[in-house]
Amino acid sequence: MEANVPRRSRLSLSQYQEGVLAGDVITLSRAITLIESRKEEDRALSGLLLEGLLPYSKDKNCIRIGITGVPGVGKSTFIETFGMHLIEEVGLKLAVLAVDPSSERSRGSILGDKTRMAQLAAHPRAYIRPSPSQSTLGGIAKRTREVMFLCQVAGYEVILVETVGVGQSETMVSRMTDFFLLLMLAGAGDELQGIKKGIMEMADLIAITKADGENKLAAQRAKAEYKNALHLFPPKSNGWFPEVITCSALQKEGIVQIWEMIEKFALEQQKKGFWIDNRSEQNVFWLKETIRETLESSFYAQPTIQEHWQNTIHQVATGAQDISQATNFLIDLYRKSFFSEK
Amino acid sequence: MEANVPRRSRLSLSQYQEGVLAGDVITLSRAITLIESRKEEDRALSGLLLEGLLPYSKDKNCIRIGITGVPGVGKSTFIETFGMHLIEEVGLKLAVLAVDPSSERSRGSILGDKTRMAQLAAHPRAYIRPSPSQSTLGGIAKRTREVMFLCQVAGYEVILVETVGVGQSETMVSRMTDFFLLLMLAGAGDELQGIKKGIMEMADLIAITKADGENKLAAQRAKAEYKNALHLFPPKSNGWFPEVITCSALQKEGIVQIWEMIEKFALEQQKKGFWIDNRSEQNVFWLKETIRETLESSFYAQPTIQEHWQNTIHQVATGAQDISQATNFLIDLYRKSFFSEK
Repeated sequence: MEANVPRRSRLSLSQYQEGVLAGDVITLSRAITLIESRKEEDRALSGLLLEGLLPYSKDKNCIRIGITGVPGVGKSTFIETFGMHLIEEVGLKLAVLAVDPSSERSRGSILGDKTRMAQLAAHPRAYIRPSPSQSTLGGIAKRTREVMFLCQVAGYEVILVETVGVGQSETMVSRMTDFFLLLMLAGAGDELQGIKKGIMEMADLIAITKADGENKLAAQRAKAEYKNALHLFPPKSNGWFPEVITCSALQKEGIVQIWEMIEKFALEQQKKGFWIDNRSEQNVFWLKETIRETLESSFYAQPTIQEHWQNTIHQVATGAQDISQATNFLIDLYRKSFFSEK
Repeated sequence: MEANVPRRSRLSLSQYQEGVLAGDVITLSRAITLIESRKEEDRALSGLLLEGLLPYSKDKNCIRIGITGVPGVGKSTFIETFGMHLIEEVGLKLAVLAVDPSSERSRGSILGDKTRMAQLAAHPRAYIRPSPSQSTLGGIAKRTREVMFLCQVAGYEVILVETVGVGQSETMVSRMTDFFLLLMLAGAGDELQGIKKGIMEMADLIAITKADGENKLAAQRAKAEYKNALHLFPPKSNGWFPEVITCSALQKEGIVQIWEMIEKFALEQQKKGFWIDNRSEQNVFWLKETIRETLESSFYAQPTIQEHWQNTIHQVATGAQDISQATNFLIDLYRKSFFSEK
């Protein structure tokens, strides 16, 4: 486990770069630790690392798959079986990332991502990276995009990004992946599953899990229901119509079909040009988000703002000061602070 | 209709102020037109007007009610009957505002808010203000908060803020009102009604409309269903448990009960202190939103940013430039532009 590894000195920029490009798992892990670090010197180094690796991403294709489902849906078992299929049968290299904020983590996850996917964890062509301790959604988004990039450059051809499916991380993940797979249980209404309607709308494919034994009939029924439900959503702009599939990770049923569906999606979207359009739009979306976050954090970090903040929100909260008035006052202070810094 | 009124010269600050405080409807309308204006000189004047009126809001109590429901739910008829009850039976002054972005407006609304609520429109103790032509959600939010404030200061004791219930305006309205009333139709699943689950979660009260004639039984059934559905949501932090009521605007049934429920809510929340807490939190929320919008619009309005924007998003979209790198480059340009302005 990561936590037991004694702290080693930092590698040099070229050591990180060469190790990642060579697909060396230990260097990759250390590079991820570097980009997760909040220390000033680490951030400078990780900036250089990402920049230096950028030209290499062109030749390394990968499919980024978002995968979500509430605790109990059998996500770990599914990823284990699905992942082993990709590695052993299709012959791909696979990375699995978990992105949930600590507050959203289920007990299963706390047990350790590597424990709950033992086969994958032991396989040389799979790389599992547990969720970090970051707590803001913005921080997690940035980290996840960068880890995906590192995995891509390190030669992983499929990247699974896993979330718990009850929070806000799903929208985020759907905005940084090529394909969004939603796992659902038969027999439980979506109310009970805690899955929000918005998440169903994001799905490119719904897989009803645990469709085996006594549960098989219920899974078939659920499949029909979800198919109907999907018809109520407006058509997607990329022309893709989401399917519903039943599967059993235990019996290894439906697994092949799910991968075929993803391949079909990739081929179709690439042919139509939507694949690259989607990635471009995602990049521009994250650029704007990053700009917004940077502007806001710079504002709230200014000592003059911090000094006046409590008093201003008190004034505004009690209605003693108008919101526009308070905004103008603070923005003015903020701008002036740049000049006094000089 | 507003559009046919010939353009009049602006009033003086004190004329606006005195007219609004006196509850003069014509001055109120002109003050609203002023705050809706995007002209630089109007914005300066409207800032002064809002600031000057701020001290008078303390003594003028009002209940701000958000009201939503999809087209066809009978919103206009409901507001007409409910509003006339408040004016005639309870003896209150009522303002009705519509806040939907033009794109979300149904045909009924385009016909004119005053036409569809003829009785209220003709009543001296009611004030109806149609939706403006603003198109951004941020612009609408600011305008709605300011119009509510003007109506409050002008002596309106109940302010109904109406939205169509299919867009994003509902979250916004629920964040600037004291009570959120959701109108629903019997016999149509919520899927069909286009109401998002998130909107049901916001409701302080659900009223099943058109519970008359042949529709009465269906309305009773819908009431029971929605009651059950409400139990699935987590309890609200203010301790209020949303009720479901059937009503008929035509038969004037359930109208009295709805107002009683709102009064009960107001009393209970005021006693517990949540009423004022909620308003304070809302103010701070809008302060933060306004700061964010101001920071962003200042950024994107900078000539240096506009000059480099197209090239930067092209670089980022195609993956030729890293997002952090591009952000740092732009933020740097932005900061430098302050100094060159001097």
